[in-house]
Amino acid sequence: MTQDNAEERRAQLRRAALEYHEFPTPGKISIAATKQLVNQHDLALAYSPGVAAPCEEIVKDPNAAFKYTSRGNLVGVITNGTAVLGLGDIGPLAGKPVMEGKAVLFKKFSGIDVFDIEINEKDPEKLVEIIAALEPTFGGINLEDIKAPDCFYIERKLRERMKIPVFHDDQHGTAIVVLAALKNSLKLVKKDISTVKIVMSGAGAAGTAVARLLVKSGAKNIIAFDKDGVINSSCDRNDEMRSWFIDHSNAENFAGDLHQAMSGADVFIGVSAPNVLVEADIAAMADKSIVFALANPDPEIDPVVARKYAAVVATGRSDQPNQINNVLAFPGIFRGLLDAQAHKITDDLLVAAAIAIADCVTPSQLNASFIVPSVFDPQVVSKVAAAVKQSV
Amino acid sequence: MTQDNAEERRAQLRRAALEYHEFPTPGKISIAATKQLVNQHDLALAYSPGVAAPCEEIVKDPNAAFKYTSRGNLVGVITNGTAVLGLGDIGPLAGKPVMEGKAVLFKKFSGIDVFDIEINEKDPEKLVEIIAALEPTFGGINLEDIKAPDCFYIERKLRERMKIPVFHDDQHGTAIVVLAALKNSLKLVKKDISTVKIVMSGAGAAGTAVARLLVKSGAKNIIAFDKDGVINSSCDRNDEMRSWFIDHSNAENFAGDLHQAMSGADVFIGVSAPNVLVEADIAAMADKSIVFALANPDPEIDPVVARKYAAVVATGRSDQPNQINNVLAFPGIFRGLLDAQAHKITDDLLVAAAIAIADCVTPSQLNASFIVPSVFDPQVVSKVAAAVKQSV
Repeated sequence: MTQDNAEERRAQLRRAALEYHEFPTPGKISIAATKQLVNQHDLALAYSPGVAAPCEEIVKDPNAAFKYTSRGNLVGVITNGTAVLGLGDIGPLAGKPVMEGKAVLFKKFSGIDVFDIEINEKDPEKLVEIIAALEPTFGGINLEDIKAPDCFYIERKLRERMKIPVFHDDQHGTAIVVLAALKNSLKLVKKDISTVKIVMSGAGAAGTAVARLLVKSGAKNIIAFDKDGVINSSCDRNDEMRSWFIDHSNAENFAGDLHQAMSGADVFIGVSAPNVLVEADIAAMADKSIVFALANPDPEIDPVVARKYAAVVATGRSDQPNQINNVLAFPGIFRGLLDAQAHKITDDLLVAAAIAIADCVTPSQLNASFIVPSVFDPQVVSKVAAAVKQSV
Repeated sequence: MTQDNAEERRAQLRRAALEYHEFPTPGKISIAATKQLVNQHDLALAYSPGVAAPCEEIVKDPNAAFKYTSRGNLVGVITNGTAVLGLGDIGPLAGKPVMEGKAVLFKKFSGIDVFDIEINEKDPEKLVEIIAALEPTFGGINLEDIKAPDCFYIERKLRERMKIPVFHDDQHGTAIVVLAALKNSLKLVKKDISTVKIVMSGAGAAGTAVARLLVKSGAKNIIAFDKDGVINSSCDRNDEMRSWFIDHSNAENFAGDLHQAMSGADVFIGVSAPNVLVEADIAAMADKSIVFALANPDPEIDPVVARKYAAVVATGRSDQPNQINNVLAFPGIFRGLLDAQAHKITDDLLVAAAIAIADCVTPSQLNASFIVPSVFDPQVVSKVAAAVKQSV
């Protein structure tokens, strides 16, 4: 595809997307009444005076809210717009199309209702106060597109304070699907997670969560790079991402650059920026290497080039095989959490979800171009939900 | 109807209401996707990468949010559960059935989408911070069931801070419909608002708003009572409701009780408690008296008794003629506000809405049992919306 063609296709997508959002009505979601409301009697049930009955039942027993209101199937997709897609800190209002998109995905893939909530507040402490106060509204909270490192503090504080599950999808959704994909890739190349050399590019929200989940699953040799270079014991502990990587990765204190680190690596995981790798880097990897180049829409290395050397290549793109897409995780995770009326989320639960996703690909289906199920595979949500319910 | 029959009918309504809320799915609202989402191409429009296009347009022009998101048709019905219906301070979670009910009414009567937001925060200052931060989410804010006098401060502060309309329905919705009903009643009895003696029982959120709107519309002789008795210049100014009444009512400094005040009154408006009046009070009113006994479900005086003496009687009950119901006001008001992309609400706009409601009853229809249109009259919303749009 030439540069001009690529430009033209992007312009076409752009026009189609604007039209999709504008017509026939602005936006992508609406509210529907689920009960009949056609006469005075219905009104008396849905509103005053009949509505007093469910109110009084909830006063007696707060759990009755799951019986008489939509709360038990309702997730708040909440952002302050500080790290929206690849667009960065565009603010909460401009982030609304993404949050509505997430609402649509939740509904489509798991039947879960979502209110998208865009909050005009950057201060992490104040954002925690606001979101915590919304607890009576929702059965669960999906934090979205909040910048690192604030997102770690915000999620941790909210988990301490709230009695409903709080899940930052940019961290855990990505981590779960990467772990699922890596498990299946390692089966294919017959390598073990505890012995492979893993190089990571990107140590933000997603990168940190991926690395944490890999370590939780047995990975012992991770070397991570952020925009300042390799993270090793000489680095300043300027935020908790850095501190975590200093404590849990690069045990041998490698001090070279990304290209040098790629030599002999079994696995590359990129959650960073376009084209940080060159062809020689992939060529220098170990035999039967695995490359997850997840920067979107332009990966860390052209997947066509990577496939010349690597045994398995995955990207975030829908026009390539092996799309690493959070949609494989969050609908089933929240379906399971809500069905279990869960109060919290554990790391074991995240790992169980990853295994469930990986297991949706049967041994006979598994090959280098099919390491994760399709996002349209209907069994994914139910299997992930079942695994989550069992782990609650 | 005997006491036993009344008890049994309430128990029946209670059972029917619980069933209505529980089956087939809990609650009364759900989310619907308004755009097709069946394949990979749709996904690429609704979410990454296509969704970046509307985000970027909103970055360039915040008004594009009305074109590309649901915000322009989305109202937040927001409570902290401190004054829910007649149930009082039952908390935000137990208030959720009422807020969902309001969402259903908005959708049914005006096609407006509502997220019901229950906030666990009683401190007015903190509540203002939280609601103000939600501005990017909504096109308008309907405050609901927040106790007086906090509701006045909260609404005023939010109106100062937010660039979308903020409307406390318990105040203004009631006031608008009362004004509409009074205007038509005065036409019937051929009296003028500027000369009638008006006695009010109840000086809370609704009572204060009613009195304000009556004064705005020319009423000059109002005597108001709260639970401590008549409000006159000897009263402490312990909150802003009291202060307002001291400054704007009871010019002759009447100091008797409610029963004494009723003597010779042209109009009684009750937004207080059951049975505060007795038959003799109504009998003692002026000729062609007007009685609005709006306490719900049990009015300040039995309407059947009141009709023995008064020319016009109205209640809040759906099983009696002349139901004073906020549903006549808020759907059309927000329809007009959203269609006009209004930034604020003025008193003139409230009066215009009241006149529009009153005018839905034609001169030939107007009689003592028909002073306000039916809530199911489809012209009400469009006429109110048109009047509001013109007043923005």
